[in-house]
Amino acid sequence: MAKLFVSLSFLLLVIHCCLARQHLRSSFPQNNECQFRRINALEPVERVQSEGGFTEFFDSNEQQFGCAGVEVIRHQVQPRGLLLPSYTNTPILFFVEKGRGIQGVMLPGCPETFESSTEQFEGRKGGSSFTDRHQKIHQFRQGDVVAIPTGAAHWLYNDGQDELVIIALLDSQNFANQLDPNHRRFFLAGNSQERQQQQQERQPRSWRGQRGGRSQQKGSNNIFQGFDVQTIAEAFNVDQETARMLKCEDDQRGHIVLVKQGLQVIQPSIRREDEQFRGGPRANGVEETICSMKLRTNIDDPSKADVYNPEAGRCTRLNSFKFPILQFLRLSAERGVLNRNGLVAPHWLMNAHNIIYVTNGNMWIQIVNDQGEEVFNDQLQERQLVVVPQNFAVVKQAGDQGCEWISFRTNDNAMINTLAGENSVMRALPVDVIANAYQLPREQAQRLKYNRQEGVLFPASKGMSRRGGGGRRSSRGGGMAENETA
Amino acid sequence: MAKLFVSLSFLLLVIHCCLARQHLRSSFPQNNECQFRRINALEPVERVQSEGGFTEFFDSNEQQFGCAGVEVIRHQVQPRGLLLPSYTNTPILFFVEKGRGIQGVMLPGCPETFESSTEQFEGRKGGSSFTDRHQKIHQFRQGDVVAIPTGAAHWLYNDGQDELVIIALLDSQNFANQLDPNHRRFFLAGNSQERQQQQQERQPRSWRGQRGGRSQQKGSNNIFQGFDVQTIAEAFNVDQETARMLKCEDDQRGHIVLVKQGLQVIQPSIRREDEQFRGGPRANGVEETICSMKLRTNIDDPSKADVYNPEAGRCTRLNSFKFPILQFLRLSAERGVLNRNGLVAPHWLMNAHNIIYVTNGNMWIQIVNDQGEEVFNDQLQERQLVVVPQNFAVVKQAGDQGCEWISFRTNDNAMINTLAGENSVMRALPVDVIANAYQLPREQAQRLKYNRQEGVLFPASKGMSRRGGGGRRSSRGGGMAENETA
Amino acid sequence: MAKLFVSLSFLLLVIHCCLARQHLRSSFPQNNECQFRRINALEPVERVQSEGGFTEFFDSNEQQFGCAGVEVIRHQVQPRGLLLPSYTNTPILFFVEKGRGIQGVMLPGCPETFESSTEQFEGRKGGSSFTDRHQKIHQFRQGDVVAIPTGAAHWLYNDGQDELVIIALLDSQNFANQLDPNHRRFFLAGNSQERQQQQQERQPRSWRGQRGGRSQQKGSNNIFQGFDVQTIAEAFNVDQETARMLKCEDDQRGHIVLVKQGLQVIQPSIRREDEQFRGGPRANGVEETICSMKLRTNIDDPSKADVYNPEAGRCTRLNSFKFPILQFLRLSAERGVLNRNGLVAPHWLMNAHNIIYVTNGNMWIQIVNDQGEEVFNDQLQERQLVVVPQNFAVVKQAGDQGCEWISFRTNDNAMINTLAGENSVMRALPVDVIANAYQLPREQAQRLKYNRQEGVLFPASKGMSRRGGGGRRSSRGGGMAENETA
Repeated sequence: MAKLFVSLSFLLLVIHCCLARQHLRSSFPQNNECQFRRINALEPVERVQSEGGFTEFFDSNEQQFGCAGVEVIRHQVQPRGLLLPSYTNTPILFFVEKGRGIQGVMLPGCPETFESSTEQFEGRKGGSSFTDRHQKIHQFRQGDVVAIPTGAAHWLYNDGQDELVIIALLDSQNFANQLDPNHRRFFLAGNSQERQQQQQERQPRSWRGQRGGRSQQKGSNNIFQGFDVQTIAEAFNVDQETARMLKCEDDQRGHIVLVKQGLQVIQPSIRREDEQFRGGPRANGVEETICSMKLRTNIDDPSKADVYNPEAGRCTRLNSFKFPILQFLRLSAERGVLNRNGLVAPHWLMNAHNIIYVTNGNMWIQIVNDQGEEVFNDQLQERQLVVVPQNFAVVKQAGDQGCEWISFRTNDNAMINTLAGENSVMRALPVDVIANAYQLPREQAQRLKYNRQEGVLFPASKGMSRRGGGGRRSSRGGGMAENETA
Repeated sequence: MAKLFVSLSFLLLVIHCCLARQHLRSSFPQNNECQFRRINALEPVERVQSEGGFTEFFDSNEQQFGCAGVEVIRHQVQPRGLLLPSYTNTPILFFVEKGRGIQGVMLPGCPETFESSTEQFEGRKGGSSFTDRHQKIHQFRQGDVVAIPTGAAHWLYNDGQDELVIIALLDSQNFANQLDPNHRRFFLAGNSQERQQQQQERQPRSWRGQRGGRSQQKGSNNIFQGFDVQTIAEAFNVDQETARMLKCEDDQRGHIVLVKQGLQVIQPSIRREDEQFRGGPRANGVEETICSMKLRTNIDDPSKADVYNPEAGRCTRLNSFKFPILQFLRLSAERGVLNRNGLVAPHWLMNAHNIIYVTNGNMWIQIVNDQGEEVFNDQLQERQLVVVPQNFAVVKQAGDQGCEWISFRTNDNAMINTLAGENSVMRALPVDVIANAYQLPREQAQRLKYNRQEGVLFPASKGMSRRGGGGRRSSRGGGMAENETA
Repeated sequence: MAKLFVSLSFLLLVIHCCLARQHLRSSFPQNNECQFRRINALEPVERVQSEGGFTEFFDSNEQQFGCAGVEVIRHQVQPRGLLLPSYTNTPILFFVEKGRGIQGVMLPGCPETFESSTEQFEGRKGGSSFTDRHQKIHQFRQGDVVAIPTGAAHWLYNDGQDELVIIALLDSQNFANQLDPNHRRFFLAGNSQERQQQQQERQPRSWRGQRGGRSQQKGSNNIFQGFDVQTIAEAFNVDQETARMLKCEDDQRGHIVLVKQGLQVIQPSIRREDEQFRGGPRANGVEETICSMKLRTNIDDPSKADVYNPEAGRCTRLNSFKFPILQFLRLSAERGVLNRNGLVAPHWLMNAHNIIYVTNGNMWIQIVNDQGEEVFNDQLQERQLVVVPQNFAVVKQAGDQGCEWISFRTNDNAMINTLAGENSVMRALPVDVIANAYQLPREQAQRLKYNRQEGVLFPASKGMSRRGGGGRRSSRGGGMAENETA
């Protein structure tokens, strides 16, 4: 009953926060950090190895991350790998590239709703007298997007047969971060002795962002290491030996540990599908509490595409209308699939930066700044990433194998403006403005305005093998995305 | 039907944005940028000439702009001059000093509602078989304030007989700008070869803000110059020759071009007046979509003054209650007219910077900082500008010819606190606090509190020719504002 | 009637502001300002003496203030001392350590509701024909928290028999401050000649924040010193002699002056109690205007504690649900009382910095950063202060005399996450995650999870005198808080 009251209060508080307290960025990029003339496709520069997997870091000193105010990391977790509980000073939005897993996000004031009576649990686990109760467990799998609020402790576990691969955006300039704009992770367990064995040595990497800061020798020491044993013992009302274990001083396993017999948690055996959730109208998130709020949703189901052209590909966009927790994070995401040589209309985002990461295949991207200079004109290969700053113009074209990507946006309702096609700026202009602006005869202006019928995704033109001479796109693999759609 | 749906979604999105996502500034000024001891009246330092007019820039490196986080430019457009389509990373609020014109603001998802059937249009244009459909056209004329959201492409055209003169505020520290706090303009057409002939050479000026940044040689190259011709051709589904024209590489006309035969667009022939719009109650902008939202309003009609004193002058204030789009921009404006030697009560703005630009006549302004130092004590002549930082105390007095000004505020509901007069702080204080604070006998304190009956605008005192000795106000022109009122 | 309309408009405006325009911080701390390895307990470093009391300043150059974006000052006002009217570019939240007083906060557009008819007042004052009307007077006393909005002029007066002591938080990175993030105070009266006699000379302190700025020689010169006498005379419609008095040039009294005969203001003689105000439901502050909004509330009444354990102590939290003006300030506060050796559960704040100031007794505090390093492990004595940055883990334990403190938070609804006890993160974790994370047998993990039954405040353990060897806590005073409760 008290719990109910607590969570009701929390609900009110969260509604209040969600509805009333929304802006986009807490700060600007440093002076001129968005004034680059040339950027490159990025790959992870460092790997932190652990017993149960590893985490790769993109270089947070890259100017494009400085401009967008974000950092990106990539977890690869082995089966039975457990990413130890931690919390960060930024919200996290992650996409599941491969595999499946479960996650706990501990929210203060929320009840422990997953519980077992002894008999039931015995039935499932075969005779052990183990009982437990804990907060909700979230299941996720390939193609899901998962959101974690700022400062909320969370853990995740690979309960599948295959590797679990996750690409995560950490929005360090988010409004919810009141510390300096560097990503920090506060671990509740583990330590970082494993760090010395890391593969790439070029700079000792820590979980703490290093932009402009001094290098950190130490990494994921957990926060209990900063307290003395006696205090811990008293706080938990346990003996000093147990208290000392919280410091994990002799733990050599790193931040992802292997659970030998598999992790035992209480959870419904069947994954709830999205559909039941999507049934009702939920315009503003008011009827959901943070405790029951959905923290994951699928973004890769072709039947839920927002933009679809069987010859070109499809796009699925997640904004705060579809996925209310995004109101809380001020982030959104897009999943795109392009067929062989398919084109995304040249466009700009009015109100957000766009972080594009290729999950399959490759694509050729051109990015243009306010000076009309191309700042990027290259292929983006699988597992490469590029940042398109707010307002910069961009065009994408899939390579010969097609392309799949996930993109994260620094606004929960990013608005796109296309330059060509239905609904584009060109369509909104009077023909006479086009004719005079580009010194074209009116007929030619009219063709420019109306020739492209599609909206956002354009199929490859018939007379293929364009841009053969440029040699920018290398051939590799093939056709994965082509027969994807319906 | 699909369009309707799109714009309905957009409406929801915008309501959401407007109501739920409001804060004031995205960032602070640099360290100590507001700690100046002395500022000067500013005039444009540079002019970029074009075929159809020119644009003047105030120096964005001035400390007062750094403090306020804004930039100011001034367009002068000849009859039949077309300012080419562009968009910026800041919201724009502009005031029409002189002349009239039309404007298109292209908003994604909004329908092309201005359309012609062939016959109708033939009737108007005299036999040409030209038809078209495009988004709404906004008409404006002298005395109007016009708002353009961040990242929205727009163009404007002088369809009058006289020069069109516009003074525009670009709010580079606005919440909607996620790039570094410098104004950037992304042109969709034209290029900057005209730049070389610019009159003032002292620093090569570009459209990109230069505060702290490297100087830009190139200017308004349009964004299509960054894309290759083949991509453009494919995106628009046109031949390469047309595609090449989008780059405007041989265009010598600059950013404002002349439309020889006059621009043909579809628009109602009669200007809709404000009155019909002002009829109904519209507290929060919910009933307006961004697509039908009013982007301009008149601020110079004496009958709509908020503060009026026939002997002193008048003030009209635009805030987000009167002009809902300002919710979206987080800016507001005030139009002021002072008669000969009329005085504006000493005051401070609680929650906004104030950018004051004199359109006619002149006035004498004193600005005082928190140290009790005068940071400005000078005349502001026609077409000069000064920034009053938040909380700084200010007093204004018109010169012998009276004065008219426009002021822009960095808050959509700027709050004013007067020091003298009805509703002032002095009135709110107990007499005994005044007496003890200033060591005055109570009768004198009471006079101090009650002697000034007017609210904000005080007429010139009878025993004229005050401040004759100071020589700060030169005599020039005369009497323009005097018989303005009633 | 006009007044009513004005204040109604103001109400609408404020509702609008309160509900729609909420975010937390206007900017980040400087680069790496939150990356300290070691901080110290702080005491005031400077004192500015006046006729009627003095003000002490904590060093705003301290890194912990830089990280939190706040400044702290402490006023000590003698009986009949009047802190002269002033306004600041930051919101102020203050706690009354000792004594009582009255305060006026002048809000533009609010009516002068405290008025006297001549007869009545004659009755009270004994024959004087003095009448007056002014804005509402707010009474406060020890244990109250008082809020002052950004840019609102205010004064306060000690109308009690004893010294009035106030500890005030100035939130210089608040969204409402558009100037650079330094606290500035604009005085309406007085000057700073008293400054020369200040006791600590190490750096000439001004009211203006000095972080990164040039030193200020001058201090609280009032803003009228920046205007010329003639202008003041004309604005107030008074003679030049009176106008000159506003400049207070010969005033040697400093910023807190003594009112010899006691200050005469109009106010109800009996203090209205909180209870009547707390009667109705007021979820969102809509039914209150800024003019009638409560600016003070008591936080020290044991019967209103939010967390209470007779053996450990109590906590009272003020957030915007209890004290709606906090929505406007984006700040909150907590009052804590711990009995001898009582413990506050190790915890972190998800969304706010925490500024802790000890008012009585002392406590031992440990603060841990994301690297697992202790950045603070020391006693906090009476009148000392420490900043706990967002997300940093902290544990507090009262000394032998118990402890009382006030803490200010940079969020109007700060959320706490405890590590131990009921509702803690440990309770929300599955036992098997605990077991695997800390390499504990399941039984031990279960003890860790469930052994501590209390929520936030833990009583001292029976086998006392722990940490005797550390010698960190000196003995001083005694037992003040012990028999406080119930």
